[in-house]
Amino acid sequence: MKQEIIWDIAHLAHVEMLTPKLEESTHFFTDIMGMSVSDVKGDSVYLRAYDDYEHHTLKLTASKKPGMRHFAWRAKSEQALQRRVLAIKKTNYAIGWNEGDLGHGPAFQYTSPDGHLTEIYFETTKYKSGKQDTSALKNTASKFPARGINVRRIDHLNLFAKDVRAFRNFQLENLGGLLTETILDNLSDQNPKAVWFAVNSKSYDLAVTEDHTGMTGRFHHVTYATNSREEVLIAADICLENGIYIETGPHKHTIQQTFFLYVYEPGGNRVEIANTTARLIVDPDYETVVWTQEERKKGQAWGLPTVPTFHTRGTPMAEEIK
Amino acid sequence: MKQEIIWDIAHLAHVEMLTPKLEESTHFFTDIMGMSVSDVKGDSVYLRAYDDYEHHTLKLTASKKPGMRHFAWRAKSEQALQRRVLAIKKTNYAIGWNEGDLGHGPAFQYTSPDGHLTEIYFETTKYKSGKQDTSALKNTASKFPARGINVRRIDHLNLFAKDVRAFRNFQLENLGGLLTETILDNLSDQNPKAVWFAVNSKSYDLAVTEDHTGMTGRFHHVTYATNSREEVLIAADICLENGIYIETGPHKHTIQQTFFLYVYEPGGNRVEIANTTARLIVDPDYETVVWTQEERKKGQAWGLPTVPTFHTRGTPMAEEIK
Amino acid sequence: MKQEIIWDIAHLAHVEMLTPKLEESTHFFTDIMGMSVSDVKGDSVYLRAYDDYEHHTLKLTASKKPGMRHFAWRAKSEQALQRRVLAIKKTNYAIGWNEGDLGHGPAFQYTSPDGHLTEIYFETTKYKSGKQDTSALKNTASKFPARGINVRRIDHLNLFAKDVRAFRNFQLENLGGLLTETILDNLSDQNPKAVWFAVNSKSYDLAVTEDHTGMTGRFHHVTYATNSREEVLIAADICLENGIYIETGPHKHTIQQTFFLYVYEPGGNRVEIANTTARLIVDPDYETVVWTQEERKKGQAWGLPTVPTFHTRGTPMAEEIK
Amino acid sequence: MKQEIIWDIAHLAHVEMLTPKLEESTHFFTDIMGMSVSDVKGDSVYLRAYDDYEHHTLKLTASKKPGMRHFAWRAKSEQALQRRVLAIKKTNYAIGWNEGDLGHGPAFQYTSPDGHLTEIYFETTKYKSGKQDTSALKNTASKFPARGINVRRIDHLNLFAKDVRAFRNFQLENLGGLLTETILDNLSDQNPKAVWFAVNSKSYDLAVTEDHTGMTGRFHHVTYATNSREEVLIAADICLENGIYIETGPHKHTIQQTFFLYVYEPGGNRVEIANTTARLIVDPDYETVVWTQEERKKGQAWGLPTVPTFHTRGTPMAEEIK
Repeated sequence: MKQEIIWDIAHLAHVEMLTPKLEESTHFFTDIMGMSVSDVKGDSVYLRAYDDYEHHTLKLTASKKPGMRHFAWRAKSEQALQRRVLAIKKTNYAIGWNEGDLGHGPAFQYTSPDGHLTEIYFETTKYKSGKQDTSALKNTASKFPARGINVRRIDHLNLFAKDVRAFRNFQLENLGGLLTETILDNLSDQNPKAVWFAVNSKSYDLAVTEDHTGMTGRFHHVTYATNSREEVLIAADICLENGIYIETGPHKHTIQQTFFLYVYEPGGNRVEIANTTARLIVDPDYETVVWTQEERKKGQAWGLPTVPTFHTRGTPMAEEIK
Repeated sequence: MKQEIIWDIAHLAHVEMLTPKLEESTHFFTDIMGMSVSDVKGDSVYLRAYDDYEHHTLKLTASKKPGMRHFAWRAKSEQALQRRVLAIKKTNYAIGWNEGDLGHGPAFQYTSPDGHLTEIYFETTKYKSGKQDTSALKNTASKFPARGINVRRIDHLNLFAKDVRAFRNFQLENLGGLLTETILDNLSDQNPKAVWFAVNSKSYDLAVTEDHTGMTGRFHHVTYATNSREEVLIAADICLENGIYIETGPHKHTIQQTFFLYVYEPGGNRVEIANTTARLIVDPDYETVVWTQEERKKGQAWGLPTVPTFHTRGTPMAEEIK
Repeated sequence: MKQEIIWDIAHLAHVEMLTPKLEESTHFFTDIMGMSVSDVKGDSVYLRAYDDYEHHTLKLTASKKPGMRHFAWRAKSEQALQRRVLAIKKTNYAIGWNEGDLGHGPAFQYTSPDGHLTEIYFETTKYKSGKQDTSALKNTASKFPARGINVRRIDHLNLFAKDVRAFRNFQLENLGGLLTETILDNLSDQNPKAVWFAVNSKSYDLAVTEDHTGMTGRFHHVTYATNSREEVLIAADICLENGIYIETGPHKHTIQQTFFLYVYEPGGNRVEIANTTARLIVDPDYETVVWTQEERKKGQAWGLPTVPTFHTRGTPMAEEIK
Repeated sequence: MKQEIIWDIAHLAHVEMLTPKLEESTHFFTDIMGMSVSDVKGDSVYLRAYDDYEHHTLKLTASKKPGMRHFAWRAKSEQALQRRVLAIKKTNYAIGWNEGDLGHGPAFQYTSPDGHLTEIYFETTKYKSGKQDTSALKNTASKFPARGINVRRIDHLNLFAKDVRAFRNFQLENLGGLLTETILDNLSDQNPKAVWFAVNSKSYDLAVTEDHTGMTGRFHHVTYATNSREEVLIAADICLENGIYIETGPHKHTIQQTFFLYVYEPGGNRVEIANTTARLIVDPDYETVVWTQEERKKGQAWGLPTVPTFHTRGTPMAEEIK
């Protein structure tokens, strides 16, 4: 009998994004993306999309340069959390417990093999809407904003890594879930160029792609989901109308089939607005789909060439690091 | 520490639907719904939607009257299957193992407390597309049909039950998952009128609603998902153009927010075509949303009254049973 | 050779809507519908949708009771205007010239045979966007609002009339255009129950339906168009979330195939949000489609029964008139 | 008083497309595009989209090389036709009357200044659907196909011309309508690089763009409209799945805002599938929107660079002409 796959992670919980333009970034996420501020503390603004059920899924923190300070997973239960912590403690990447943050309880910190600061926790403060933002449908976390892009929920995080293989092995062994898709130079390649991890029925909550600059620990993008592809098209118009730089899209990814739009928020970080139609992966022993570099040359699903910046532009940027 | 929730079921696997008009029903599911026949054996036709990864999600079997012969769950692993079987065996509802069917391995049979024949299995034959139906995107189970409604995948099953409370308790205790939403007469009511069970990130794979006729073990509907709400609207036109009876919709359910269209397939069974936009429930300790009869009187989300047949018309129908 | 059809009217220009709640109505049209205020004068607020090219398409005027003070046609040219005025002057319904209003030049006033005050003009002040609302696409009249329902442009007007036949004859003889669809009791009925007039490639700019209350000169609804049916669905959610009463829909009309949502603005007037997909009537000798009462009993396209208020609720309402 | 604009043309009627692969091209237009064959005569197949009201909007004719044999306008009336013929006869481009073709009566032939064979007629045979293809909605020309891309109607024609200025002047003087948009090298340029002509409320029925190869009389593309942008996205998947070459898109044009997908049909001709949302031009004295080459460098609306083949690949192709 095959060993059981670990299913202890519930979902990507939040991302702490660094921005040198806190005010402009906050404006972007509220007025353009349609998200709401749930709290402000020190140099940080806590935000959530209208159907995010937790206190926040994005923490914007003022910083000299853009990038990501940390991201977090929510475990499926207290027991699941303990199991994962136990596993991580056996690696070289464990840091230790902290007392939590606004919106969630104690979190165990570690880094990815590439250096990305990561947390895992279970105890959370579910968002309680108030008079102004309670939805008419009580199975919605808060009122539909009717403002900007109206993103519904956080979808996934994409990181750059120098060593994708090390990241992959660490993740699958210690956090669990499935490797749903991967890019290899060729079928006998041992060093993946990109990996997509599923922890629930979504086809991925985390993607890690090779940083062609050779830097480590960088942020690629965070993605929020709209309810339809039509709203991704509308998002493109909203970005165009409001001077938000569109890097590429709207178009459909070959890998994972996400209908995407990539933009740069004012602080310099890449943000994706996406919809995956009705695609889910509920197959519990889904076989990893392998893409070779040869196949990648065909570009995106309908032929759009992948933009070169996709392989090199992460935050912080090379010139900012110096 | 709270007891861990059981997450051993991967998803609703398939439904065996009975039809007195096998040919017409097959035509409906292939030409109108856009599904494909993967096999024929005896009096049964096996069908799947283009991105269903298993051999079939619908088995149409000729019968004197419409209804459901059985439905099946796929377990998350061989071990998960054994755990569930062990639990079911301790109840009064266990039947025993069979050798499986076209497309899947040994299955353990049991009935719901209301008498619905159910199976659970793990071993499956994943669908292998051929020359004619291989998709250009190898992360799709087969080619987009470009025919009829183009449903993507099975979504959920809805059963009628005389005793919803018994069904709920049996399901949560032995199969696991979450009760995401429920209808009660009032907040102190102990006998739910309807229940929705989630086993993965979809907000439900199974719904059970009270049969106002007092009959037991009946089928309410099976649902297939389209990629967008626009395609549910197009589906309504396709049904209109092809003489398929529309019972209600398109409209948005208050409960679970599904954008729905209900039709009767030629054999007499209710079929739903639906899209849930980007809504998922990834919260592992999601608190059940309770709806009272008072709230239900408001009708569906945008005010459409619930059709009376929704509470009485299941298959087989009263007059067919006599 | 058949006589040529008159094509002297360019389009429905604007509607002056009366409201007992000017502030709330203005809030509805700006924050919910996504329109903008282009001017305020006396007790009137002038509004337009983001791609309306004129100064306004809606003039909200404070009044004790809801309803319509007047509506206006824009002629295709100065010469076309003169031709229409000449024709109208030969009827019993001519009133005479006025000096125009904010946004347009001299207008010739008349009433419909049912008493609706109407204007026709040619000279107009095209909307000039400013720093705040200039679109990034210079073929758009102003910036996409990214607020509320984001209606694009005025679409059509629907009036109640006691004598639909008289209205029809007056309109076709003096204003021109095509009668694209009509409702008759039966095929030999001489008194239409409803009529739809096209003056350009849209399948109608004006509809007139029989007022079952026997009152005259009432307003039924004004319609604004969204870019997609998806946005009509989103509009329904926005109305639901903001306490705007939904009378019926979203659904597809059998007649004219409009995908509709009917709501009551806070002042009590009915407003439609609609999308007609790619349907246009470019056939210059389109034959009127006749619907009998028998056919109307089938309800709307996908089976939704027509709401009874559709035949009786106009503004001002019966009780307001007393 | 300004001279009245001529509004004698009802719409683009049909295009006769030449194909070296008649069978494959017919398969493309029926099975992929979702159109229907209304007649076959000699080496020609006559086709229409489901809501095209005439006998055909596309005539496919077998030929050694791809391209266009002729295209046709339908006049608004018999009198309008006579007025246009009178005007054309005064130019050097008149050819004379023919007896018509399947589906329409006598047509007057002429060439554009660039040599494109053109016809204008009024008398037409409206399509009468039969038992198999009558729509449930009698205001639709025929049943929704539920097959392939389900295009609704012909939208517009795009021609290449060596001398765009001559084409523009001829068209506006003799056929009438509006020049809605144009490309100039700069604002003082007298030789437009591209022109868009509106003859009804659609923002254009004909576009003419400069042929960078210096050839004359070539065909650029014909466009069919879908009911939504979602269906343009689905069309891209259908083309991908069926080996139809996608040249560019889906994306939104800056000019005219059309949401487009360009493909090559098997005979080699470019075909566009498009949706224009709710955009119409009903302003009868719309001022031409001028785009300079500087502005064109920004690419399409959301940043997609214009594909180089768009300026050089017409049919017949250079190598085919030799």
